[in-house]
Amino acid sequence: MLLPKKGRYTFKVEQYQCNVRKMLRFSFLVNMMLSSADYHSSERGFGTDYLNAHGKTWVLSRLAVEMMRIPSRHEIIAVETWVEKVHPLFTNRNFRMTVDSTGEVLGWGRSVWAMIDTTTRHPENLLEVKNGTIMEFVVEPDSPDFLEVPISKPVRVQMEDISMAREVPTFFSDVDFNGHINSMRYVDHILDTFPLSWHRENNIRRLDIAYVAEGRPEIPIRIYKNVLQENPEDNSTDYGFKIHQKLPENQEETEACRLRLRTIPLIP
Amino acid sequence: MLLPKKGRYTFKVEQYQCNVRKMLRFSFLVNMMLSSADYHSSERGFGTDYLNAHGKTWVLSRLAVEMMRIPSRHEIIAVETWVEKVHPLFTNRNFRMTVDSTGEVLGWGRSVWAMIDTTTRHPENLLEVKNGTIMEFVVEPDSPDFLEVPISKPVRVQMEDISMAREVPTFFSDVDFNGHINSMRYVDHILDTFPLSWHRENNIRRLDIAYVAEGRPEIPIRIYKNVLQENPEDNSTDYGFKIHQKLPENQEETEACRLRLRTIPLIP
Repeated sequence: MLLPKKGRYTFKVEQYQCNVRKMLRFSFLVNMMLSSADYHSSERGFGTDYLNAHGKTWVLSRLAVEMMRIPSRHEIIAVETWVEKVHPLFTNRNFRMTVDSTGEVLGWGRSVWAMIDTTTRHPENLLEVKNGTIMEFVVEPDSPDFLEVPISKPVRVQMEDISMAREVPTFFSDVDFNGHINSMRYVDHILDTFPLSWHRENNIRRLDIAYVAEGRPEIPIRIYKNVLQENPEDNSTDYGFKIHQKLPENQEETEACRLRLRTIPLIP
Repeated sequence: MLLPKKGRYTFKVEQYQCNVRKMLRFSFLVNMMLSSADYHSSERGFGTDYLNAHGKTWVLSRLAVEMMRIPSRHEIIAVETWVEKVHPLFTNRNFRMTVDSTGEVLGWGRSVWAMIDTTTRHPENLLEVKNGTIMEFVVEPDSPDFLEVPISKPVRVQMEDISMAREVPTFFSDVDFNGHINSMRYVDHILDTFPLSWHRENNIRRLDIAYVAEGRPEIPIRIYKNVLQENPEDNSTDYGFKIHQKLPENQEETEACRLRLRTIPLIP
């Protein structure tokens, strides 16, 4: 059976995934997107199970998510995901989030992935893996499945004058199936730099993540935070975050990832 | 339409819900059980949406989960849940976890819930809410749906000689839709007192939680931990945990909950 190029996966917004405003927490939204990417690639023979058995794995390099509306408790959302383009050393994967029953578009995502050799950590040529059959799943612009993604590409923010917001120890619950710091926990940790009162009065409009190096477990992360700019046209604020770890072997601060958060106050 | 007394809800074990051994993290398992309780009660007219609109809410008082096997990445599990008994001031809800496709029994759960008035925080008489119609959903021992739950009731451990393992600040990501510390985060926090190396070599067999008072956000929790006993018959170890908060208004340590964890080494 030839699978359709696009995947579509539904998720119910569970009560215990919600914040104090009974809306889906952004870390769980990112989680649903990454799980959809996992299902889509696994079903098509390019999942981490297959790759790990062949000494390779996917590495998420960049991610951008932009939401018009954050879904609420008990809503069922559909995450559509597809491959936009395959380059030798990376691939572009897109996302659309809708309400399952009505098709209301909630938001969009763009991501960039590399494939690496798990021993050497060197990138693989995607066109050589499985004889380049990944190309079969690219949704070309002339395909009836094609969707124009109306959000800009993931950014890697430039940050000057950074100051440390917080140092946070990392534990078992921060670690993912790969043995690295879980992507969704970075999102939690940067959102945790805002007090609960702020979360009651602000929505997240967009998140950009640029991964630099895998986070090492059981080493504290240092969160640097700054206001990047205020955007008068929609009253939004852009915050920049850099996540560092001080590695024990050389006591040097190493960057793990960089994030940008665009937020909008509920009452303008 | 008269709904069946028992509810059955399926969940796929997502990659990003897994620990470093590619098995479902216990906090997400508890999450799935509580979500199933939420769906079951909501569908039958006793969910938090209905109750909150009438100034009431459910409060989880005790929970016990015992697992023969922890499911792995990409397995689809079914959580069955039903009401075993309704007393005036509390109700017993049971759980069975199986593999969706094969019916393999993975584990069992028991829980005790109270209903409170959200203003006075006083318990409600469950037999008076909606004219006691909750009784319609009790699975009686003579029902064909009846399942004997082969695990003991949730315990509230007695702990002497406790010592503080860790003080942990609490942030936005620790807070649930009710504005209290999220039940699943307590599970994460106690599991985080074990190093990653321990998690690579031990399984969780059973967890008991007894809630004492709702955890207050943005106040650190103090985790007290002790070995309760070693069980030579299956080589398991019982750990006791008490979670306290030092409340700012009186600087007194107040107990939020008490947990017991039974663990088994992978290599006996």
